[in-house]
Amino acid sequence: MNPRTAPAPGEPIASLADRRTRADRARQVADAIRTHIVSGVYAGGVLPREPELVAEFRTTRNTVRHALDLLRVEGLVERCPGVGTVVTADKYSHGLDRLLGLAEVMREHGPISNEVRTASVVVPPRVVADRLELPEGAFVIYLERLRRLGGIPLSLDLTYLPTDMGEQLLDEDLANRDVFGLIEHVTGRRLGDADVAIEAVNADPHSAAVLDTPRDAALLLVERLTRLDDGRPVDLEFIRFRADRITMRAQVTRS
Amino acid sequence: MNPRTAPAPGEPIASLADRRTRADRARQVADAIRTHIVSGVYAGGVLPREPELVAEFRTTRNTVRHALDLLRVEGLVERCPGVGTVVTADKYSHGLDRLLGLAEVMREHGPISNEVRTASVVVPPRVVADRLELPEGAFVIYLERLRRLGGIPLSLDLTYLPTDMGEQLLDEDLANRDVFGLIEHVTGRRLGDADVAIEAVNADPHSAAVLDTPRDAALLLVERLTRLDDGRPVDLEFIRFRADRITMRAQVTRS
Repeated sequence: MNPRTAPAPGEPIASLADRRTRADRARQVADAIRTHIVSGVYAGGVLPREPELVAEFRTTRNTVRHALDLLRVEGLVERCPGVGTVVTADKYSHGLDRLLGLAEVMREHGPISNEVRTASVVVPPRVVADRLELPEGAFVIYLERLRRLGGIPLSLDLTYLPTDMGEQLLDEDLANRDVFGLIEHVTGRRLGDADVAIEAVNADPHSAAVLDTPRDAALLLVERLTRLDDGRPVDLEFIRFRADRITMRAQVTRS
Repeated sequence: MNPRTAPAPGEPIASLADRRTRADRARQVADAIRTHIVSGVYAGGVLPREPELVAEFRTTRNTVRHALDLLRVEGLVERCPGVGTVVTADKYSHGLDRLLGLAEVMREHGPISNEVRTASVVVPPRVVADRLELPEGAFVIYLERLRRLGGIPLSLDLTYLPTDMGEQLLDEDLANRDVFGLIEHVTGRRLGDADVAIEAVNADPHSAAVLDTPRDAALLLVERLTRLDDGRPVDLEFIRFRADRITMRAQVTRS
């Protein structure tokens, strides 16, 4: 097979069950452009013009337009008259290889500001008490924080903490510091590990408004139960990340 | 503070910046019920009736209804006349702690069937060739598979493989076996590790139709580059998981 006579990506030269449509090809191209965006290939934020994308992906103008439409719906790019297609906002990696607070993760990109929308003492839902290994009816500290980088929302965090450490935390600088660092400061202990569950959810109207993202936009929802190094659970969070701004990353080994 | 006189979860007894609305409370309740669903608390699939949920979460009937609406939009529950609110489909955990194929992950739940929608030789987008460390213009095997458990779609997988192992794979039982196992079978080598990136995206119309999920539903999009144990990249996948059926899980340590 001679690469000089290579077929376009949408034109297989051998096939078991070839039922691909233009929609399939557009998704392939969209996936490739998304990989470019996430890895920062389009520094400066402007995508190549359509004819260049047509040449790069060896496909049709229609397919490229369809692919760009898909990325626009995701909120990753916007069409700007006179400029072309631009990347809407920087997208950052959030590693799953080490337990870090958001400000620690984003250190190289700039400071995280936290808008503390709620800080109160409540009786939580029973499932929250169970996960924190507290008796039913016990009070917890409940925090709701909108977290921004460069003024643009990254995540909306709902946090439950046992009152014995939570009440001390309320006197600390919640606007500028990670809860992780504050827990270690207040307890004098290191954090140990966390159980992390990652889901995708559509933004409810209220979350969408707070995160300044379209209603029904796909969000990464992370439930994270964090323990001190003695095994005691101390922090249960439900974090809604804007999926156009955060990619979760892990390295996984076979054995 | 006496738990017997505990306030409802929505009624803080102390507050720094209390701006919570009914939408916030509904989201809290929805998060708690989602945790129950995902951990299989509602075995049999029927949620408690509204008055019981009102009592459990110490909140109002309106808040419970709002919370159930949020979960219905996510596709997690449905209202069935005469039965109540039921869990739509089982939700499964996909661990990030070890590199496993989907059939290996789901072994205890039943066999995975793969509908091979495309299996062809193509020239991939350049970013795909780069990630597989192939020269630009080199051919690859391209697979598109719809993967089901119990007849219900779990994921739509787009897979790129170098031709030297891909062409042997095409003769294997792609309908019933993981590509991971087949790669190890064909090469006689073990897989080593994989770089995994997790995003949330809205389902484009075509993916939604194939996955039998609502248009714009939030999906987990996993990009995974897998290497043999000698470090050679051999498998690049773009996997769209139905987020109402899969939760990604990891345990993360601080140091």
